[in-house]
Amino acid sequence: MTQFSSVAPPDPDAAAAARARQDTLTKPPGSLGRLEDLSVWVASCQGVCPPRPFERARVVVFAGDHGVTAAGVSAYPAEVTAQMVANFAAGGAAINVLAEAAGATVRVIDIAVDAPDPLTPSAGAYKVRRGSGNIAVEDAMSDEETLAAIDAGRRIADEEVDAGADLLIAGDMGIGNTTAATTLVAALTDSEPVAVVGRGTGVDDAGWARKTAAVRDALYRARRVTTDPPALLRICGGADLAAMAGFCAQAAVRRTPVILDGMVVTAAALVAERMAPGARQWWQAGHRSTEPAHAVALRRLDLDPIVDMGMRLGEGTGAAVALPVVRAAVAVLASMATFDEAGIAT
Amino acid sequence: MTQFSSVAPPDPDAAAAARARQDTLTKPPGSLGRLEDLSVWVASCQGVCPPRPFERARVVVFAGDHGVTAAGVSAYPAEVTAQMVANFAAGGAAINVLAEAAGATVRVIDIAVDAPDPLTPSAGAYKVRRGSGNIAVEDAMSDEETLAAIDAGRRIADEEVDAGADLLIAGDMGIGNTTAATTLVAALTDSEPVAVVGRGTGVDDAGWARKTAAVRDALYRARRVTTDPPALLRICGGADLAAMAGFCAQAAVRRTPVILDGMVVTAAALVAERMAPGARQWWQAGHRSTEPAHAVALRRLDLDPIVDMGMRLGEGTGAAVALPVVRAAVAVLASMATFDEAGIAT
Repeated sequence: MTQFSSVAPPDPDAAAAARARQDTLTKPPGSLGRLEDLSVWVASCQGVCPPRPFERARVVVFAGDHGVTAAGVSAYPAEVTAQMVANFAAGGAAINVLAEAAGATVRVIDIAVDAPDPLTPSAGAYKVRRGSGNIAVEDAMSDEETLAAIDAGRRIADEEVDAGADLLIAGDMGIGNTTAATTLVAALTDSEPVAVVGRGTGVDDAGWARKTAAVRDALYRARRVTTDPPALLRICGGADLAAMAGFCAQAAVRRTPVILDGMVVTAAALVAERMAPGARQWWQAGHRSTEPAHAVALRRLDLDPIVDMGMRLGEGTGAAVALPVVRAAVAVLASMATFDEAGIAT
Repeated sequence: MTQFSSVAPPDPDAAAAARARQDTLTKPPGSLGRLEDLSVWVASCQGVCPPRPFERARVVVFAGDHGVTAAGVSAYPAEVTAQMVANFAAGGAAINVLAEAAGATVRVIDIAVDAPDPLTPSAGAYKVRRGSGNIAVEDAMSDEETLAAIDAGRRIADEEVDAGADLLIAGDMGIGNTTAATTLVAALTDSEPVAVVGRGTGVDDAGWARKTAAVRDALYRARRVTTDPPALLRICGGADLAAMAGFCAQAAVRRTPVILDGMVVTAAALVAERMAPGARQWWQAGHRSTEPAHAVALRRLDLDPIVDMGMRLGEGTGAAVALPVVRAAVAVLASMATFDEAGIAT
């Protein structure tokens, strides 16, 4: 079974203390807007006010291939997934650069890349299978594979938290993954394909039509199982999405804040919230991507993105851009002088 | 005379090289959205591709008092300006914390604080006067003071660029300054007071009505001189706004990129663009504040804010929150692998 321990809410006492402290700092109350809210959220996640600066922010990129690429849904060939995993390992990808700029480190997981051997034994330690079934016509994977993938995500979250991670970001890499993720969002929000299918990495009009047809066909089978998260992941998800869902759910179980990335991760988070109700209180939406399904998923999770940069890359890049903003929020609450300390009239 | 040298546009060749390089990096073209645009802008400002990381980002906070506080336009007493200058010097204010988080340093200028002595000789080296006239009923300052304040801003920009600053942020501090800044925006955009007057640091309904009346009265005199920037600053601005305008204009003359802060700095920038046409090409809008006049001024300058955090503090804080995003954009263009380097199919 994919049973998660119950999710405790972030500490309301620390939140109250953080709100009260914000109002003592040398600025008009509320004048730092969303920064104040973010500082309160971090304090409540950490259970302490003022909050501590993040010392080990960690990005975990889940890479997997998707058989639905056979339906011509992507602008890129499937072999790019494995090539990009090598690029992550070499430090040349956007997430490497943006994570470093934000003071985070990157771990890459080959959960279902369609390549004979994982790039490194550690990257492939949780590998479930090579690629996934073409969800337009068949299940993405078996029951056993689904449970193994969810469990892999859970165990990876445990490993990271046990190693001291105090902020987690999930990233995605996989040609075709926006097709599967869009189907998940459509199934869980009862949306029509045309309302949620986007351009992914930049597919053309004909490709968009093929992608919409693939989502429609997958959705036809998925709509029977919308209240059964593992079945849903099996039918129209993939091992990468299942692992991300397990990761996001377990991070919340372990009381560890998460910055969600774009559409693919948020689709997995939508499933995670079903598996571990209340998990979303431990998450912030890092950015608003250009994918229509992302906005739908964010609305369902009641999350408001921190930045809106018109990004649509995945890998965790949108969350990485938001991380310095969250760090700034923490610094304000931890380091600003109070009116009393500064001897200022209120 | 307050004549600025002509403003050269940022380097179009470096911009073209940056756009071309973005399309060789290991990501779908355009998938980093606004980050790509920002990287191109920095490259064009620096005249080199890839751009260099900022090594000396500098925040200059211009502090000044405003006689219009006598009209009851602010939620805070005027003496808070001097107290906050001391707080800046002690490192306890929001801008100190946010600048440090963003890798920038802070300089405070007492240009017109209503206190007998500047906090330090260096902070007061350009002091023009104590406070300003109540713009609801009289000019903010004299002709000579206006020109001295504009020139102070120009000289401070020169000093900073000569000392190696490669990115500048102007910040504001002054109880009552949003009343003067709102009047400038209204005058330069032909807006009605009720359409642009906001809550500033948090004035109540009665205070908002008094503020709107003060803007209306100042605007009545200012509308005769909207094509004469020094006269406009004299009648309804203040020494701080004049210095910020000189600073933003001269930064552009010196080919140095600027991240604008909120409403007060953007009002000064609106004047600066009149004094040094084309200067706005050297500026980015750091954030969107909650002040209505800010949106109007940004539209006039054709600038799109980088972040929108519901902030309304000033001091340069909104620009400081945006700085890490600009740094991230530079890092992407400078450090990501190309498709060729990574051996990835395109």
